[in-house]
Amino acid sequence: MTPKRQVFTLPTYTTISGRTLTDVKVGYETYGTLNAARDNAILICHYFSGTAHAAGKYAESDPLPGWWDTVIGPGKAFDTDRYFIISSDSLCCVRVFDDQVVTTGPASLDPATGKPYGADFPIISVSDMVNVQKALVESFGIAKLVAVAGPSAGSVKSLQWSVDYPEMVDRVVAVISPGLVLTPYGRSMIELWCAPIRVDPAWKNGHYDLREQPVTGMNEGLRATFMSAISPAWMDRMFPGDGWADPAKDPAFSIHHMFKAYAGVGALAAMSTPLCDANSILYMARAAGIYNARAKIAAARAKFLFIPVASDMLAPPACSEAAVRDIRASGGRAELHVLDTDGGHFDGLTAIARAGDVIRDFLASD
Amino acid sequence: MTPKRQVFTLPTYTTISGRTLTDVKVGYETYGTLNAARDNAILICHYFSGTAHAAGKYAESDPLPGWWDTVIGPGKAFDTDRYFIISSDSLCCVRVFDDQVVTTGPASLDPATGKPYGADFPIISVSDMVNVQKALVESFGIAKLVAVAGPSAGSVKSLQWSVDYPEMVDRVVAVISPGLVLTPYGRSMIELWCAPIRVDPAWKNGHYDLREQPVTGMNEGLRATFMSAISPAWMDRMFPGDGWADPAKDPAFSIHHMFKAYAGVGALAAMSTPLCDANSILYMARAAGIYNARAKIAAARAKFLFIPVASDMLAPPACSEAAVRDIRASGGRAELHVLDTDGGHFDGLTAIARAGDVIRDFLASD
Repeated sequence: MTPKRQVFTLPTYTTISGRTLTDVKVGYETYGTLNAARDNAILICHYFSGTAHAAGKYAESDPLPGWWDTVIGPGKAFDTDRYFIISSDSLCCVRVFDDQVVTTGPASLDPATGKPYGADFPIISVSDMVNVQKALVESFGIAKLVAVAGPSAGSVKSLQWSVDYPEMVDRVVAVISPGLVLTPYGRSMIELWCAPIRVDPAWKNGHYDLREQPVTGMNEGLRATFMSAISPAWMDRMFPGDGWADPAKDPAFSIHHMFKAYAGVGALAAMSTPLCDANSILYMARAAGIYNARAKIAAARAKFLFIPVASDMLAPPACSEAAVRDIRASGGRAELHVLDTDGGHFDGLTAIARAGDVIRDFLASD
Repeated sequence: MTPKRQVFTLPTYTTISGRTLTDVKVGYETYGTLNAARDNAILICHYFSGTAHAAGKYAESDPLPGWWDTVIGPGKAFDTDRYFIISSDSLCCVRVFDDQVVTTGPASLDPATGKPYGADFPIISVSDMVNVQKALVESFGIAKLVAVAGPSAGSVKSLQWSVDYPEMVDRVVAVISPGLVLTPYGRSMIELWCAPIRVDPAWKNGHYDLREQPVTGMNEGLRATFMSAISPAWMDRMFPGDGWADPAKDPAFSIHHMFKAYAGVGALAAMSTPLCDANSILYMARAAGIYNARAKIAAARAKFLFIPVASDMLAPPACSEAAVRDIRASGGRAELHVLDTDGGHFDGLTAIARAGDVIRDFLASD
């Protein structure tokens, strides 16, 4: 399965907040084949720092395949022998400098000034992301989706789909989901990821040159994001016993010397920094903060499957449980399947194959 | 009970790392009366951002009493009719600018230069904090303590006492404890609190003027600390439904507009900023990071009571459970009493009275 990133363009798009943008673009990949009836399509939505690259490798030499490759492909849970899978970049995708990513967001050029919008870009809501995806889906002549699915912020888009376009969504698979609305705690944790960027003077209140990103703040913000997504057990496995980041620099002798685990997570997080735009991180966080599918949940017609991870501290199972209760209370159908793994939020990506059969059955069910 | 902060001074003290400091001072308070046999003393140790002020009010008009006032006093769990309680400021206490606090740390003047040590101050280990407390305890002619007790970083000092001076400690009460050594995750979370300070250019690698603290970084660092110490349920109660920080500034329209809960926690945290020294926060974090009572636990002679909080995400009950296992495996006696409350780490302060009877019985037990 060799995906190819393609580009979908809307000549104009007016945001929920009332701003009209021109030449709005998102990248997307497809896996499998759309049938003649155009009724075998599934939309996959990516997580906070994810992209459309959900499955396959562009080249055999790629170190890793797409982020849900264990469940998307021939014979897999999202079976490409059966379904036509569309996976799209979001508006405000944070990985702006990933060669494959196509997204309109604060790093895009404002045609009025010829410069990047920066903090003048309008706030993008999850409904805006969904609206652009809907236009993409309709461009294939698809009137109804077998399912919309995704992990974390991908579940948020999936749930928003179910209330914004109820007639188009038969099923929602919401993995490691914060639920129908973020708790004040969940919303604050995500804003906390942004804090180091806001502290970094290179951020300039959002009006930096794109080539002069607030790298220090982004490194720390992405480290905080990473810490939210893992678990104590994950870290014990990765850095058994911890230790010193530099064998010559004992942390017991200087506050400038670091521990191995902390530095290691920082290094893993910092690998993303050159690919990301700082404002886009803040915009994605804000989209999550203002997200609310709960207010309209009675409008949904979909059947829901929630798959939280037991050890997830960012979107603990209680978030999915609350969503299931709310959906059932409004007369809807919702199921819960807890992944009992110890790796934290990340297991919504790394351990998703363990829910493969549950997802496969759910997609085939009435 | 009207405490009075007193000052204990050591003319010289040589740190575990090998640096000799002069005129080393810590503040302390006492509650109750030392008996003639000098065998009724209990040492109370404070948490990360705490101080010696554990009980009582300095004046009737004080808005709040000391941080463990619900369990320290006449007839309370730490019964001042029975016990003589000593509560001391730590070396590197972070609340340097609290009028009552007396501490030697990076904000102290280096007699060699007449300027604050800043990042040139030696790293202080938990054993250093304990050594100074031991000299304080011995200054009363006390040879043995009924107990050493404290929440969070206070439990860390208490546990270090039990292995550094086994013959002086009969009992340890370790509340919301990270256990005998921090996990790589726990250590990293605490370093994460320091990250915004390190990003703030006003920190100047630790060489700022004491009157020109890296306030922005400290505000964010203390907000992160606060978030680690609370829980989703705590935040729901404090900020039901969340909302906008400023009724005129909808977060849906600008990344510069904030949510009420996030801003509210930030405001609560920022109340501490003018009282704190940035380097002292980093030094206290490092002391926690290098702490390891596990290596010497077989030396302990004390009996241990661990009181974790079920909803604590920073030092979850698993940390106390691991410590109990390790102590029992080394032939020691350890008990576990879980506080089943939903407020998170903070409940080690706010809900401690619920464990009052358990503590009282433990202190009276053989």
